[in-house]
Amino acid sequence: MSTPTSQTGNLLETWDTLSEEERVDAFEQIPRAQADDFFLALNPRDQASLILSLPEGERRIWMRLLAPDDATDVIQEAPEEDRPGLLSLLDETNLREVLALMAYKEDEAGGLMSPRFARLRPEMPIDEAIAYLRRQAQSGLVETVHYAYALDSEQHLLGIVTFRRLFSAQRGQSVRDIMRTTFVSVKEEMDQEALANLFSEEHLLAIPVVDDNNRMKGIVTVDDIVDVVEEEASEDIQKIGGMEALDAPYLEVGFLDMVRKRGGWLSALFLGEMLTATAMGFFEHEIARAVVLALFIPLIISSGGNSGSQATTLVIRAMALGEVRLRDWWRVVRREFAAGLALGCILGAIGLIRILVWQAIAQPYGEHYRLIAITVAASLIGVVLFGTIVGSTLPFILRRMGMDPASASAPFVATLVDVTGLIIYFTVASLILSGTLL
Amino acid sequence: MSTPTSQTGNLLETWDTLSEEERVDAFEQIPRAQADDFFLALNPRDQASLILSLPEGERRIWMRLLAPDDATDVIQEAPEEDRPGLLSLLDETNLREVLALMAYKEDEAGGLMSPRFARLRPEMPIDEAIAYLRRQAQSGLVETVHYAYALDSEQHLLGIVTFRRLFSAQRGQSVRDIMRTTFVSVKEEMDQEALANLFSEEHLLAIPVVDDNNRMKGIVTVDDIVDVVEEEASEDIQKIGGMEALDAPYLEVGFLDMVRKRGGWLSALFLGEMLTATAMGFFEHEIARAVVLALFIPLIISSGGNSGSQATTLVIRAMALGEVRLRDWWRVVRREFAAGLALGCILGAIGLIRILVWQAIAQPYGEHYRLIAITVAASLIGVVLFGTIVGSTLPFILRRMGMDPASASAPFVATLVDVTGLIIYFTVASLILSGTLL
Repeated sequence: MSTPTSQTGNLLETWDTLSEEERVDAFEQIPRAQADDFFLALNPRDQASLILSLPEGERRIWMRLLAPDDATDVIQEAPEEDRPGLLSLLDETNLREVLALMAYKEDEAGGLMSPRFARLRPEMPIDEAIAYLRRQAQSGLVETVHYAYALDSEQHLLGIVTFRRLFSAQRGQSVRDIMRTTFVSVKEEMDQEALANLFSEEHLLAIPVVDDNNRMKGIVTVDDIVDVVEEEASEDIQKIGGMEALDAPYLEVGFLDMVRKRGGWLSALFLGEMLTATAMGFFEHEIARAVVLALFIPLIISSGGNSGSQATTLVIRAMALGEVRLRDWWRVVRREFAAGLALGCILGAIGLIRILVWQAIAQPYGEHYRLIAITVAASLIGVVLFGTIVGSTLPFILRRMGMDPASASAPFVATLVDVTGLIIYFTVASLILSGTLL
Repeated sequence: MSTPTSQTGNLLETWDTLSEEERVDAFEQIPRAQADDFFLALNPRDQASLILSLPEGERRIWMRLLAPDDATDVIQEAPEEDRPGLLSLLDETNLREVLALMAYKEDEAGGLMSPRFARLRPEMPIDEAIAYLRRQAQSGLVETVHYAYALDSEQHLLGIVTFRRLFSAQRGQSVRDIMRTTFVSVKEEMDQEALANLFSEEHLLAIPVVDDNNRMKGIVTVDDIVDVVEEEASEDIQKIGGMEALDAPYLEVGFLDMVRKRGGWLSALFLGEMLTATAMGFFEHEIARAVVLALFIPLIISSGGNSGSQATTLVIRAMALGEVRLRDWWRVVRREFAAGLALGCILGAIGLIRILVWQAIAQPYGEHYRLIAITVAASLIGVVLFGTIVGSTLPFILRRMGMDPASASAPFVATLVDVTGLIIYFTVASLILSGTLL
């Protein structure tokens, strides 16, 4: 950052580490000329808690500084009981807009949009259009002025004018001559993840939101989408890691809340993993007869878990980015079957060599070491193949059932594969070793 | 999307699934009026391969359609041997700009910036400034016109004018009166991940890039940042899943490349996991005397792996978003120590109850079931605590060593914890069970 902002820039960086009182003190010390920029740079959660920490008389100017979509976010971040108080700080026009926005879900296009877009009529001459936009900007009714939207008298969206085209138009042209009539628009209920992918594909600065009759409702701007993309990725990463999404920065989550969000999944996985003890119970007899088999249990089941983790992570991410859709499942499964077989053969070969080399050096595996090596190698192929297929199909199954594919977390897949991995291993062992070791 | 674009919109969606020839055919069939928008909506990798698939005579118009920063991306996506040919298609001004941009690394601010920003002089009156910007837009020398930058005669950046302020200024004011002199700027070598976090915090549409003497070099616009955020998140997610980052959409990666990127890590993890067989070798005697101990091995080591996966995922993501820095390590470790202890006690309690209940129902664990239950519960506390601490500290250690924290993948942590988990388990067992079972 450049020197002028370095003071408030530093404060912004340390903000997360300050207590509520320290935040208020630090905020009150920022010169008035920089305080508004600083306040606008905070995220909605911090804005909400700062406003609520200020004395009641000081709250109004900060709430009114916010554009309606940002004010809506702040109010939705505040505790239920504080919301009416915050709403009462808004002026009448803003209040109406905020109440309208609050009716949308936070993670839909409607909940992200701003109603303050620049409007034009198609028949306006260019110079009149520019003058008209200047008046809209002066009145404060326009949040961003990167595109202007040409509407008819019933608010139907007819075309979009970029400022570049507006500025480079010839005298005598009208809005209709320079507006683009092929453009991307979205419906109010479009999910924010799909919306983010659309922004990424189309490289747009704003996308208009329309209702079912193509009537213009607002615009979503790309600066709000950066947050959406980071938020959605955090959610997916945390779910893939095997827990509930935190929905807040790591250091800001309370200790009990953190333990609850991790403990829930951890306990569920633990209960699932208990099946391994049950499965092993069935093979207690084999283990007692050939303790050497027990040595390779962690190696074999973890290989299944690791390959499952890779496959599920790849498919979850490809789905989130829209690279892979539900209808691609068969293509993905065929591809993963081949990949799983190849990976299984690689690990099987390494395992085989390792046992033969170790035996040559230290003879730990007894006279049937060749059969043991084959058992381990064959089990690895089966377990890695199985892990890869489970990992790649589970996200499809979850999405088909209307659930979040990211819930097919690496630990979840590993747990599923651990139980089956044991069964595969001991089944292969009894086939290969019966009559010798077993 | 709205109806007019649905045809090319569908093509864009199916693009990934088409062969090279099909792509050229489909592209040639798009009406000329829509082809440029379609081409600009493709990502740089697809643009590069499409241009190279076209007959040589048709390539020039598509290369020249691209702004210099986008042309640079396309050239960097093309195979080494095709780059001189693509460069020769550019006109002289563009060529100079592209060569300058190619000197920057792709993942730095300098590699993302466009040199085509709108310039103003501070002393210009408002009306003259608007007329001057219109001329710049008409000449095609300006990529985006959301902010204009006030420079002195030596290109030092003095202030930023938003179009909203420019449009709402009073007659008689000059650029100096309305420009903001406190603003965010970045250096050319700033990493793209840090840059993305800055965009997310500051909600800006463009950030100016300056050299060490505050001389303006270009701007990075937010629409390029959405891609950066998605790309960085994909890399992290794939590394967390225990493989090399694919650096391309899932379905576009060749089979051998895919197996190599997964097989490398999988083999490394497998070699690490072999230590479990060695560790278990030391306890073969104990297992032979008390086979019942083997039953709980998968349960105990997977609990360590799962809790480690949670901790490493949380810390990696918090680091990527800049929520947690290197200097926060002690705070994080203390917090994770407490969380690990709490989670270990929860799983320990569940494990204890499970063994006691099972024993009451089916008596599978013999006369020393109480001691076995205590052994399992105590081991769980130790293993979960250990997993959580390893998972939360490893990303710090990797970053301190200048490596990517995301390499502390869930499978990597699980492998580390598996070996130690076995040692913890058998040590606890010999302490509690010696004299009875052992």
